[in-house]
This record gives sequence, structure tokens and C-alpha cells, in this order.
Amino acid sequence: MKHIPHVSLITIIEIVAILVGALSGFIEARRKRMDLVGVFTVAFITAFGGGTLRDILLDKRPLFWVQHQEYAILIFVLALIASPLIRTLRQIVSERVIVVADAVGLGLFAVAGVSQAQQANMPVFIASMMGVITGIFGGVLRDIVCNEVPMVFRDGKPYAICAFIGCWMYIVLQKTSVSDDFALWSSAMVITVLRLLTWKFDMRLGRP
Amino acid sequence: MKHIPHVSLITIIEIVAILVGALSGFIEARRKRMDLVGVFTVAFITAFGGGTLRDILLDKRPLFWVQHQEYAILIFVLALIASPLIRTLRQIVSERVIVVADAVGLGLFAVAGVSQAQQANMPVFIASMMGVITGIFGGVLRDIVCNEVPMVFRDGKPYAICAFIGCWMYIVLQKTSVSDDFALWSSAMVITVLRLLTWKFDMRLGRP
Amino acid sequence: MKHIPHVSLITIIEIVAILVGALSGFIEARRKRMDLVGVFTVAFITAFGGGTLRDILLDKRPLFWVQHQEYAILIFVLALIASPLIRTLRQIVSERVIVVADAVGLGLFAVAGVSQAQQANMPVFIASMMGVITGIFGGVLRDIVCNEVPMVFRDGKPYAICAFIGCWMYIVLQKTSVSDDFALWSSAMVITVLRLLTWKFDMRLGRP
Repeated sequence: MKHIPHVSLITIIEIVAILVGALSGFIEARRKRMDLVGVFTVAFITAFGGGTLRDILLDKRPLFWVQHQEYAILIFVLALIASPLIRTLRQIVSERVIVVADAVGLGLFAVAGVSQAQQANMPVFIASMMGVITGIFGGVLRDIVCNEVPMVFRDGKPYAICAFIGCWMYIVLQKTSVSDDFALWSSAMVITVLRLLTWKFDMRLGRP
Repeated sequence: MKHIPHVSLITIIEIVAILVGALSGFIEARRKRMDLVGVFTVAFITAFGGGTLRDILLDKRPLFWVQHQEYAILIFVLALIASPLIRTLRQIVSERVIVVADAVGLGLFAVAGVSQAQQANMPVFIASMMGVITGIFGGVLRDIVCNEVPMVFRDGKPYAICAFIGCWMYIVLQKTSVSDDFALWSSAMVITVLRLLTWKFDMRLGRP
Repeated sequence: MKHIPHVSLITIIEIVAILVGALSGFIEARRKRMDLVGVFTVAFITAFGGGTLRDILLDKRPLFWVQHQEYAILIFVLALIASPLIRTLRQIVSERVIVVADAVGLGLFAVAGVSQAQQANMPVFIASMMGVITGIFGGVLRDIVCNEVPMVFRDGKPYAICAFIGCWMYIVLQKTSVSDDFALWSSAMVITVLRLLTWKFDMRLGRP
């Protein structure tokens, strides 16, 4: 994520996106009646799995969470209080807030993924795939560890498609004369808005 | 695969092998009632998972499908029409054709895997394992993502064993005075023929 | 493991730890009614999966089992006789012996994992995570391949916690004036003893 400028705003959004990922891991791990070790690991994998897979495929090191161990420590501390945390969040935070935060995270992570793939000289289609992988594979790995068929592969909701469209928008915008900052932020925002619209209207794709 | 000579013939065989891998992913993903995202991802993982795992273990980059994004695009286009595609294939292509194409792919991928492991200076037993991994782990990862115990680990058919035997044949032939071309092609062909014979006679291994 | 001194003793312990990992893979693979290919692969993944994942995350090569192909060959030979092997072991080795050997392996692998992470300049919390990953992810990957929710994430036993405590003891001891040898061996021993005590008294953690 470090390649998106304006560090202070980005840092806040980044933390929110990671927390939303971790929260989704907490919920799934608890649904599977996991213990502390499982709750922490699943939350960690959900929050960082997509970016880690991308970096392994690109052979990029150090990994994001290695450079920022404070995020791992944060998830560790939250895992210790996962149960009251989730209960409290349910009372003060509506599902709508979580969906919005998740959509913001999806946009940022996906566009950051494309950006890093392009810096590693990936061809464009592969770069767009790396963006989508960054955005969705945290949840995919969460579901594999929890012994489920990954939700994003079977619920018919265009979650990954929204990321894919925004990744291509970023790739196209870069070929134009707009600034890289504008390309990044507008593409991330398009992903977020598309995701929220498809959620709002409960859109589904047919099966191919 | 690029280390096997005679590019034009190899390119055709390579495309066929990748398509057969993708097809097996399409079928399994649809059996699990996955959506477009799942169908594409599972097909992609089945086609490229074995070689990707080998390259990660060997720390070899760029990955095959990164250098040849046309294959990823091809699978993407096919995923869009997976349903009519599978229906049409069922009418014009017999199971026999698919088994033959898969056996050809197994031979080529396995021998190419050994070859690349040897270029990376792996010891011989590890090189033979890398060959088998290249040949079978696409299907293994497909089954893990589809939440099944991998078929190749439990059906008792000597699929991986055929690859293992051919990998060792290649390793031994290299120590002799035969040309590397001959070693590659004859070993790949032995794997293909062994696989077809064991399929024809429905051979099973006992459980150890 | 090669960074722990006193090669001859370490080699013996290392072999025992690997064999115990492989044995646990044999048992789980047979419980899933896998064939020879599955039994070998699951045993191999259980024995080497944790260290391999750590090395991929650290981008460290060559992998341990690549440098020591004799261990892969040993597991291969044992897989061929897994059934009589397990039957014989059940007669001559009590469960207690296996738990002790596994606890010794957990201690050694975890502390070796921290040590290697520190040599790769990981920050301390990440280094402690790498130690735990080295100790437990063989079993996690075994369970994923066998299509189970990983045992270590749901049984509530403080297996990973014992490793985590010992990893931190090693990190703290290194900051003091004690020798690195002493830090390594005493931390590994603390993990082993903690694991055996929690097993003896059947301790469980509550769910978070």
C-alpha cells in the first residue's frame, strides 16, 4: 500500500481495511468454534493473505506485514478480546458500516495490487489479475482454512468483478495524461462505488 | 516448458495440455455450482498450479503464465462460455480424447518439471519430485479449493506413479550418451503410454 | 535446523522430529483411506510444511529438504511400508513416546524458526510468529490437504501457545549475556516441557 501517496490519510484507510479483514476472519473463525490460535491465524490470513500471495507470485520482499509488525500485534491483541469485541461491534456498528469499510478496502487493495504488479513489469492482464488477487484472496484463503468452498467463487455476487473493472480503469488511465495520483484514487473509488451499488441492489451474475 | 526444443510442435501440445487442465477445472467448478469468478480461478489453478508451485519452491521467476499472458486471457475467454463449451465438447469429443490429451500433458509437464529442477541444481530425488509436482499439483490445488480430498491421493490409480517412473527414466537417460532431446521426448512418451495403459486396464494400487 | 550447534546430537533429534511428523501424516492419510501417493505426500507435507512455508515467506533458499534429500527418500521408503510400520509401532511404542518425541520436535523446530527469522532481520514479533509457523504449520497443511479444519486451530489445547512462549524466551535470552547455545537449547527445552505439562494435565484454553 505504501505506493499510494498522502501517507496520513492512507494510513487511516489502511488500518480500517486491515481491521475489516481481520474482523471478517474473527467472525468466520468463531463460527467454526476455533480457539485463540485459530482466531488469530484466520484473522491474520484474511487481512494479509491476498497481498502475501501477490508478493510471493511477484517474488517481492519484504512482505507488507513484515515491514509493519504493528499490524500483526494489533490483530493479536484484538484476537485476545475477539468475543466481546464482536459483541460490542454488533451493538454500535451496523452491517452497512462494515460493508462500506470492506468496499473501501477492496478498492484500495486491488488498485495497490495492480500498481505493484506494474512496478514489477507484469504484462497488463496479469497485472489486473494481481489486483484482483490482492483484493479477494484473503477471503479465499480464510475459507480454505475454514474448510469451506470460497464464498467469492460461488455466491454469484460480482465482488471480484468490481475489482477487475477498477483495475482495468487504472491501467487505462495510466496510458492517458492524468496524474498517477488521480488514476489511483479514482479507480479505487470506482471499485468501492460499484461494490456498494451491486450490494445495494443485490445483483447476481448467472453461472457460466 | 520453454526448455523443450522444437517450438512450434511444443506450442501446440502445450496449448492442448493447458486447455485440458482448464477443462478439468471448468468441470469441477461447475459441479460445485461456482460462479464465473470461481470457474475462471479454478480452471487457472488447475492449468498452472503445478508449475507455479514448482517455481515457487525453486524460487524461479518469472512464472510461466506471467511470461505468456495469452494463456491466462484464453482461459478467461473460455470461462465466459464454460457452460456451452462443456456441452459442445461432450457432443463432439469422447472421454477417450480427453484422457489421451491429459496423458500427453502429464508426460510433458512432468519431464519439463524435472528438467527445470535439474537446471536449478536440485539433487536427483528432489528433481523427480519436482517433476511429479508439476504434473499433478494443478489437480491437487483444484481439489483443495473445491473442498475435496485430492483425487490423486485417494483413487488408487497410478497416475502420479506413471509420472514418477518417466521422471526417473529421464534422469537415467541423461547420464547416458543419448541426446537431451531424445531423453526428454522418450520419457514424456513413456509417461503418456503408461498412463494410458493403466487407464485402459483400470489398474489400481493397493493402499500402503 | 543447521544453525543449532552440536551436529551429531542435533542430527539424531532432527531425524526423530521429522519421523514423528511423517508418522502423524501417515496416520491421518490412512484414516482418510489415501493411496501410496497420498500417504507419501501428506507425510512429507506434515514433516516439512512448516519450515517450507517459513522459508517461502522469508524468501530463503535452498529449502531444508532440498539440501537433505535423504530425508525425502526416507519418508518415501517408509510410505511404502506405512501400514505394517504403523501396526508395529503401535505394539512397541506407547502414545506417551510419540507425544514426547513430538514435543521435542516442536521445541527444536520453533526455536530454529525464530533463529532463522532473526538471521533474516525480521522484527521480533514477526520472528516469534515464524517460530510458531515452523512448529505448527506442517500439521495445519496436513489437515487442509486432508479436508479438515486444522486441529491446532480448534482443539483449545495450548500447543501453539507453548511454542510462542518459548520463542519469546529465546528472543529475550538473546538480549542478555547468555550464550546463543544456551538460549537455543533452554528455550527449546521449555517448549517441550510446557507442551508435556499441558498434555499431562489436559489443559484447555477457553475460546476468545
